[in-house]
Amino acid sequence: MTKQTTLAEIGEFGLIERITKPFTHNHKSTKYGVGDDCAVITSSKTTCTVITTDMLVEGIHFDLIYTPLKHLGYKAVVANISDIYAMNGTPSHITVSIAVSAKFSVEAIEQLYEGIHLACKTYTIDLIGGDTTSSVTGLTISITAIGTAETSAITYRNTARVNDLICVTGNLGAAYMGLQILQREKAVFTQAGAQPKLEGYEYVLQRQLKPESPKNVLESLKKANIIPTSMIDISDGLSSELFHICKQSGVGCNIYEEKLPVHEQTVEVCNEFSIEPLIPMLHGGDDYELLFTVDITNYDTISKIQDIHIIGSITQADKGLHLISKAGDHVPLKAQGWTSFAQ
Amino acid sequence: MTKQTTLAEIGEFGLIERITKPFTHNHKSTKYGVGDDCAVITSSKTTCTVITTDMLVEGIHFDLIYTPLKHLGYKAVVANISDIYAMNGTPSHITVSIAVSAKFSVEAIEQLYEGIHLACKTYTIDLIGGDTTSSVTGLTISITAIGTAETSAITYRNTARVNDLICVTGNLGAAYMGLQILQREKAVFTQAGAQPKLEGYEYVLQRQLKPESPKNVLESLKKANIIPTSMIDISDGLSSELFHICKQSGVGCNIYEEKLPVHEQTVEVCNEFSIEPLIPMLHGGDDYELLFTVDITNYDTISKIQDIHIIGSITQADKGLHLISKAGDHVPLKAQGWTSFAQ
Repeated sequence: MTKQTTLAEIGEFGLIERITKPFTHNHKSTKYGVGDDCAVITSSKTTCTVITTDMLVEGIHFDLIYTPLKHLGYKAVVANISDIYAMNGTPSHITVSIAVSAKFSVEAIEQLYEGIHLACKTYTIDLIGGDTTSSVTGLTISITAIGTAETSAITYRNTARVNDLICVTGNLGAAYMGLQILQREKAVFTQAGAQPKLEGYEYVLQRQLKPESPKNVLESLKKANIIPTSMIDISDGLSSELFHICKQSGVGCNIYEEKLPVHEQTVEVCNEFSIEPLIPMLHGGDDYELLFTVDITNYDTISKIQDIHIIGSITQADKGLHLISKAGDHVPLKAQGWTSFAQ
Repeated sequence: MTKQTTLAEIGEFGLIERITKPFTHNHKSTKYGVGDDCAVITSSKTTCTVITTDMLVEGIHFDLIYTPLKHLGYKAVVANISDIYAMNGTPSHITVSIAVSAKFSVEAIEQLYEGIHLACKTYTIDLIGGDTTSSVTGLTISITAIGTAETSAITYRNTARVNDLICVTGNLGAAYMGLQILQREKAVFTQAGAQPKLEGYEYVLQRQLKPESPKNVLESLKKANIIPTSMIDISDGLSSELFHICKQSGVGCNIYEEKLPVHEQTVEVCNEFSIEPLIPMLHGGDDYELLFTVDITNYDTISKIQDIHIIGSITQADKGLHLISKAGDHVPLKAQGWTSFAQ
């Protein structure tokens, strides 16, 4: 019998590399395929269609014990359109497919779609199709988001250049700490039947359960005539996303611990859990902030834009990827972001 | 507690109606949303982007005991691009998302993608993205297919007109009888451990396991300058699809038993199973043939095109939907096609 390799052995990115290797592109319109936040298809002389898709599986990506279905619907849409923003595109349409087991009532599915509807309203997205089917167990949601982008303004992952400034939007690690609260309260509830205590954790919980995409920041960049040199959304953790940009661009980076933005409630919750805040800031998933690079000449302009933080700069590839600690130490970064394939 | 409605009570189409009701379209480019084989987005003055998506769940849509993964990958692509052809469009791109449990090896996933690759090669499709994640149990495949269509040539379901001819491509019911063979041999194998006997059933098995889309017929229609007045692909059974066209177009229909095309092996297998061939021909799913209507003035031209069969004509809505039997009886049609929500 031929050797059988487990998925855990090669991980998600190893798997993607292996299964997509034989595929070639035969359409002139295919500008970019697998390997970025979105695929890019030329639609006219100056514009492209950008497309992304995500699959969310109950028990892997979400736990319905502490995830209201309405929030789940909202988040599923945001997670997808976040990939469109990460290409510097404007999301416009989605399709939503669901597989549901008989345990779900029509009213439960309606709650899910209320959240999807609210996200569509908030971000001006048209729901144009999908599929509904039954499943053997649990809920699976698959969303495809479609948007448009000016061809000249599309931002890929593989185009960061040495000396570019590295920027992030909003703040980091909050969604991860929100998840810690939810998991702790679930454990208390299942073991002792106690009602969950969620007061005082509103910010981190909202970041986990109902994240938003920093679309305003893109509008500010456009107004300031700045096109990022590269961009990615932070879904699996800052460190992991920096590895994508650096590996694909053939560069290295230095980021500064003291420059990393964090919300005060994230720090408070970290203290409560005795977790070093740097851990969720570097490796926590689900933030849906944007990580991007800009030419260094944009320093003054970028510094003045609300919600953008300059956290470091791009270096030569041979310098590697480093975090400069508050004490001035160069600590090599690790790409230990979230993965659904257990290692 | 509010009343909880089960999915089985309202069925797939009832569910879709309920959950999509609150959604409105806010983009001018949205030409058609939920309710046809594809969504339609205007991409230029004369062309549109057509998009469709499908979700296939292990244990619901396929049984890996008798479905080779390579065939499954091929069929999953064909099922999707078949919806693009049904809009009179040309498929060009797909995204493929999979959720897989730890029981699948990398080599098994590679087999699935070999089938996807073969279908992409056969139909000139570029794979441009997707998602890979783990699942709690089994395999789920979600494919989104994207294509283009001339705006003036797009064929919807809701535009059939009284007196139009009703046509189908290829033949009907073969895939369903292929499934009967596979299920019988599975039962024999699990009960008696006997090796499956599949010789002599090659045609119906191929129709079930590795269906093709009748793309050549669309090319013939184009050459003959015929644009169907309405079109749908036959995935859930002829009768069910006729109901979609008639309900959405506000018309009725007469189809003639003697005109329905069937492959001789389908009839042989029906005899073996003591099944009236008309049953799978009307209600068997998975055929992926096309059902369409054309103006009656096209009669002579259509009659000469290979693989197209004129099976009846469109009537006033108040006449209802009927099968005219070989004996001349008017039998009301029933829409009892395949559904994943058990009634």
